[in-house]
Amino acid sequence: MQLGMIGLGRMGANIVRRIVRDGHTAVGCERHPENIDQLAAELGENFQGSTELPKFVAMLETPRVVWVMIPAGATGAVTDSLSELLEPGDIIIDGGNSRYHEDIARAKALSPKGIHYVDIGTSGGVFGLERGFCLMIGGEDETVAHLDPLLKSIAPGIEAAPRTPGRTGEPSTAEQGYLHCGPAGAGHFVKMVHNGIEYGAMAAYAEGLNILHKADIGTRTAGEHSAEVTPLEHPEYYRYAIDIPEVTEVWRRGSVVASWLLDLTAAELYGDPNLDSFGGRVSDSGEGRWTLDAAIDEGVPAPVLSAALFQRFASRGESLYADKVLSAMRQAFGGHHELPQG
Amino acid sequence: MQLGMIGLGRMGANIVRRIVRDGHTAVGCERHPENIDQLAAELGENFQGSTELPKFVAMLETPRVVWVMIPAGATGAVTDSLSELLEPGDIIIDGGNSRYHEDIARAKALSPKGIHYVDIGTSGGVFGLERGFCLMIGGEDETVAHLDPLLKSIAPGIEAAPRTPGRTGEPSTAEQGYLHCGPAGAGHFVKMVHNGIEYGAMAAYAEGLNILHKADIGTRTAGEHSAEVTPLEHPEYYRYAIDIPEVTEVWRRGSVVASWLLDLTAAELYGDPNLDSFGGRVSDSGEGRWTLDAAIDEGVPAPVLSAALFQRFASRGESLYADKVLSAMRQAFGGHHELPQG
Amino acid sequence: MQLGMIGLGRMGANIVRRIVRDGHTAVGCERHPENIDQLAAELGENFQGSTELPKFVAMLETPRVVWVMIPAGATGAVTDSLSELLEPGDIIIDGGNSRYHEDIARAKALSPKGIHYVDIGTSGGVFGLERGFCLMIGGEDETVAHLDPLLKSIAPGIEAAPRTPGRTGEPSTAEQGYLHCGPAGAGHFVKMVHNGIEYGAMAAYAEGLNILHKADIGTRTAGEHSAEVTPLEHPEYYRYAIDIPEVTEVWRRGSVVASWLLDLTAAELYGDPNLDSFGGRVSDSGEGRWTLDAAIDEGVPAPVLSAALFQRFASRGESLYADKVLSAMRQAFGGHHELPQG
Amino acid sequence: MQLGMIGLGRMGANIVRRIVRDGHTAVGCERHPENIDQLAAELGENFQGSTELPKFVAMLETPRVVWVMIPAGATGAVTDSLSELLEPGDIIIDGGNSRYHEDIARAKALSPKGIHYVDIGTSGGVFGLERGFCLMIGGEDETVAHLDPLLKSIAPGIEAAPRTPGRTGEPSTAEQGYLHCGPAGAGHFVKMVHNGIEYGAMAAYAEGLNILHKADIGTRTAGEHSAEVTPLEHPEYYRYAIDIPEVTEVWRRGSVVASWLLDLTAAELYGDPNLDSFGGRVSDSGEGRWTLDAAIDEGVPAPVLSAALFQRFASRGESLYADKVLSAMRQAFGGHHELPQG
Repeated sequence: MQLGMIGLGRMGANIVRRIVRDGHTAVGCERHPENIDQLAAELGENFQGSTELPKFVAMLETPRVVWVMIPAGATGAVTDSLSELLEPGDIIIDGGNSRYHEDIARAKALSPKGIHYVDIGTSGGVFGLERGFCLMIGGEDETVAHLDPLLKSIAPGIEAAPRTPGRTGEPSTAEQGYLHCGPAGAGHFVKMVHNGIEYGAMAAYAEGLNILHKADIGTRTAGEHSAEVTPLEHPEYYRYAIDIPEVTEVWRRGSVVASWLLDLTAAELYGDPNLDSFGGRVSDSGEGRWTLDAAIDEGVPAPVLSAALFQRFASRGESLYADKVLSAMRQAFGGHHELPQG
Repeated sequence: MQLGMIGLGRMGANIVRRIVRDGHTAVGCERHPENIDQLAAELGENFQGSTELPKFVAMLETPRVVWVMIPAGATGAVTDSLSELLEPGDIIIDGGNSRYHEDIARAKALSPKGIHYVDIGTSGGVFGLERGFCLMIGGEDETVAHLDPLLKSIAPGIEAAPRTPGRTGEPSTAEQGYLHCGPAGAGHFVKMVHNGIEYGAMAAYAEGLNILHKADIGTRTAGEHSAEVTPLEHPEYYRYAIDIPEVTEVWRRGSVVASWLLDLTAAELYGDPNLDSFGGRVSDSGEGRWTLDAAIDEGVPAPVLSAALFQRFASRGESLYADKVLSAMRQAFGGHHELPQG
Repeated sequence: MQLGMIGLGRMGANIVRRIVRDGHTAVGCERHPENIDQLAAELGENFQGSTELPKFVAMLETPRVVWVMIPAGATGAVTDSLSELLEPGDIIIDGGNSRYHEDIARAKALSPKGIHYVDIGTSGGVFGLERGFCLMIGGEDETVAHLDPLLKSIAPGIEAAPRTPGRTGEPSTAEQGYLHCGPAGAGHFVKMVHNGIEYGAMAAYAEGLNILHKADIGTRTAGEHSAEVTPLEHPEYYRYAIDIPEVTEVWRRGSVVASWLLDLTAAELYGDPNLDSFGGRVSDSGEGRWTLDAAIDEGVPAPVLSAALFQRFASRGESLYADKVLSAMRQAFGGHHELPQG
Repeated sequence: MQLGMIGLGRMGANIVRRIVRDGHTAVGCERHPENIDQLAAELGENFQGSTELPKFVAMLETPRVVWVMIPAGATGAVTDSLSELLEPGDIIIDGGNSRYHEDIARAKALSPKGIHYVDIGTSGGVFGLERGFCLMIGGEDETVAHLDPLLKSIAPGIEAAPRTPGRTGEPSTAEQGYLHCGPAGAGHFVKMVHNGIEYGAMAAYAEGLNILHKADIGTRTAGEHSAEVTPLEHPEYYRYAIDIPEVTEVWRRGSVVASWLLDLTAAELYGDPNLDSFGGRVSDSGEGRWTLDAAIDEGVPAPVLSAALFQRFASRGESLYADKVLSAMRQAFGGHHELPQG
């Protein structure tokens, strides 16, 4: 089967590599000709490409399958241009990080033209080429079914994890790493929640490691504690110098908190045991916010996911004004002066 | 009635002033003779004092009533020395910020000597002289009853707030601003929870004002938003330059969030509209931590009070290691680089 | 000056009463004629009304000032009908709980017709008649200035709170209880944040009182603690039977947490000491959610306000599915069985 | 090498099985003779046991190695009895879930007798026999080194996870699944934080799945929304019927949130897709609480871990009083009545 790919960055190129490896062919479209040339050199006759959208479209067999894999901000314009060039029966896939609201709008806008729209939340990051990509898919039944051979090649496959006890017989697509989650937007909705969970789980590790990091506080001089900070009641309980890189390593085997995120954390800590290469300003890319928006709209409590998001905001200094308000109040009612910078 | 006061700092001296004003007499004990001299000059024959504990004790009528009003860390040693000098029937009051665990231990230790122990959580801060002090009291019924004339003089009195609808007849002591809350420790327990609530309410204002503070984010140049931070979907919704000092002022009259904390905030913001005199490092003095300890022991959820406490910790930079862990993870799975310092 | 009021429910009628008391006149519009008749009987010649919108509009002097005070869901339709009947120079005020997004849209839609739009966030609840209403106002400078005589009458006035130290001279409008916060939407924006703070402060009290409520846990039989719940390490620290109605009363005088919300809480607890008339299902009316949406859009941390909102969701049973997931996980890795219903 | 095991429940018995499989021998001590008989039948001459502590001690080679694997509440008494029977040079291991404070006290108490004390936090739950146990160890260097052959047999071994990139040469013990974390208490300290992280990560999944669970809220009748609950602004965004068991399955392969906890969740949801066998009352076993206590003592923010713990408390109904307070306040200031039970 043939796949058209717009955007040959790391993610797009690796998806192309996985399907070509599996016997499919691909056509690429990219602003940077060197990215096309490199893939062509690597994949030979199974890949061709163009820097121009109309030529790219002309290279595709009908019904065309075009996967758009570019930054979320640019997806709308490209999809619009593309839809002018496609024909009824063709399929557009948005594999980026669009908000699912946009999928619902785009599917509706393309429907009168007979163009099918599929949204695919794609997880796997920089490891997708070897691990495969976890695919969360939204769209019409028939269209998604048509794409099955490609999806199967892109996804990790059943051998990527031990089979869940109790499951037998023909594996479901979920067991192979891809899932049709519902109509337009459902793929990005599930991917959004996936990222929301990711934020929460990351924060759980980060907070726990911070508690280990400061487990030696009882060994520091008492002079450090000014009248403005509660003194430690039992310094004898906090005299541990924990080797955090080794702790993350030991938890990878046999513990309840073993996970891929932990594997990565252990690897980072092995290379940079004190995390000196990081300043601690943590970005967020939208999905965590949108997950909370959904929780609020649904009236569903999300205290952990929100705490994780807000911690990222705070890491970028966004609590400063609130903190000044607190200091001002304390001065007002208690005559408390602020601690000097530590 | 006579009160002995150990510690003539702002709180201790103001309590002495209030009782003398109300017709009682006082004896003070202080390391700094100038504090004694000043009060003596001010209060005349109704006040005397000594820098030495034995002399101070000798000046007191029996049964002696000794209020200890010194930093929590020093209370234990002073109480021990004092108990050597007192006689059965005498009363020790701890009016500081001791943890209630210590009250339970001290009451038990003093009981065989026939010395009565009372713990009084004292709220009112720097405004106590004019406003009166809110007193939360723990101890035996008879002992607390004996102290009633003094407590009544120290507390704000019923006219400090409009009477609660439905309450009629002889006002309860709570309506006058003092309350016997239970046996030893109950006073500091209730005061501890009072401070826990204070942290939560302060944080509610601080977070809300922070949202007002940044309500102009839609007017800033788009260039500020890098690829690593979600762009603002609707800048047109965030084009307000809110005058925060005036907002806190308007809320003081007729709104649901009117409070004494808000009065103080409005006063601080009037004097320093941008809070330039504060750096945003917020201390905590123990009670917020102990309130959470109690919530955990009791198995009672306290998500708001804990968020308020943790925000203070974070204001002092204590999230940094956790934030670095998050950045390390993001780099590991997504190749994301950290934002430069803003 | 004359005010037209659409909606003579408790809030609308009380605003009318306050302005008429102060020498203005009013015209009302209401579906229920008995509400009109009652106000007419009470206010005499200074009030007239109609159940029909066109007649109501005809009764108004130009430039007309029409305050719409109806449920947020109905405001849009009424404003639309009204705008058909008004003339250039007339003023529409939305005094309800609309989302500020709608204010921005309505102001823009009415502008070409020459109709001025003002949004007023109105706080004061059922006590507004006697306490006055705190008014947070959005709109054009000139229009808001034109309304000043009415706003002054509706607001509580400067005597509603002691003057903030440092403020002298002619009081600002904020000191009188009303504030022009910015252009269209600014009034509802500030009111929204006010309610967000309200949620947080309410939760702070509620959590603190819950900790007092369970301060007797150490007196209960040990048999209550099954193997599935951590036993209490120090039951001797939790043997207090706190009189919570009296505690809320004592905090009203002299304490740091004194507030109007506390006054109300003390009144409720006096009438119903165990809160037996409540089931604990807590509603939310939108502003708390929108405050969080704003915090998320602005990238500002709001851990306390979000915890307060999520607690309300959870009070309505919306955590149940999440809790089942936790129980399922615990069974899976540890063979833990759930506790029976307590 | 020989291991003495007190407590032949699931955990103790499986540890015995793993070491015997690996060529060591074991002696067991248990109240229930049938547990001893069963292991003896299974393991033959490599295992013997006794229901009486003195006989058990007599069966052990010196220096004796005794692993105590019984409920945390009973560990103290057994350790005391045991220490009367042991000789200088012998080793007691507490492999249960004791609080690390107790380890510090026990190590100190046993030191004058020449008995060595080692605390081992043991993770692995019901799967430990096949997966191996992750061991977090506290104690003196020499003593822990002496135990190495046993620890290696109990731990999962390096092949239990892919080697961390960059690590080469002789694997550290952490890479084999066991780690000497520091002096007495360090093992249980690290295990405690492990469990704290576990609570946070579990809650992240639970909240995310709850958001998926309610993603169909836009398809329900509008009549469900009363005036007391904010109506859904965009029902068209919430019309997904997500197959949650399949979503957890697809995330197991290639996604960022793949983990052992997710594996277990997918298994549970496969067997009970609607989680009908659970009521949603979630227990906590102490470590989550102690982790928070440590965070508070250290002054380290733990908003996610605390939210996770408090959610468990709330699942057991412990928010009820707080919720009633909120309803009482809302009635007081706004005349709001509570929603009827849904």
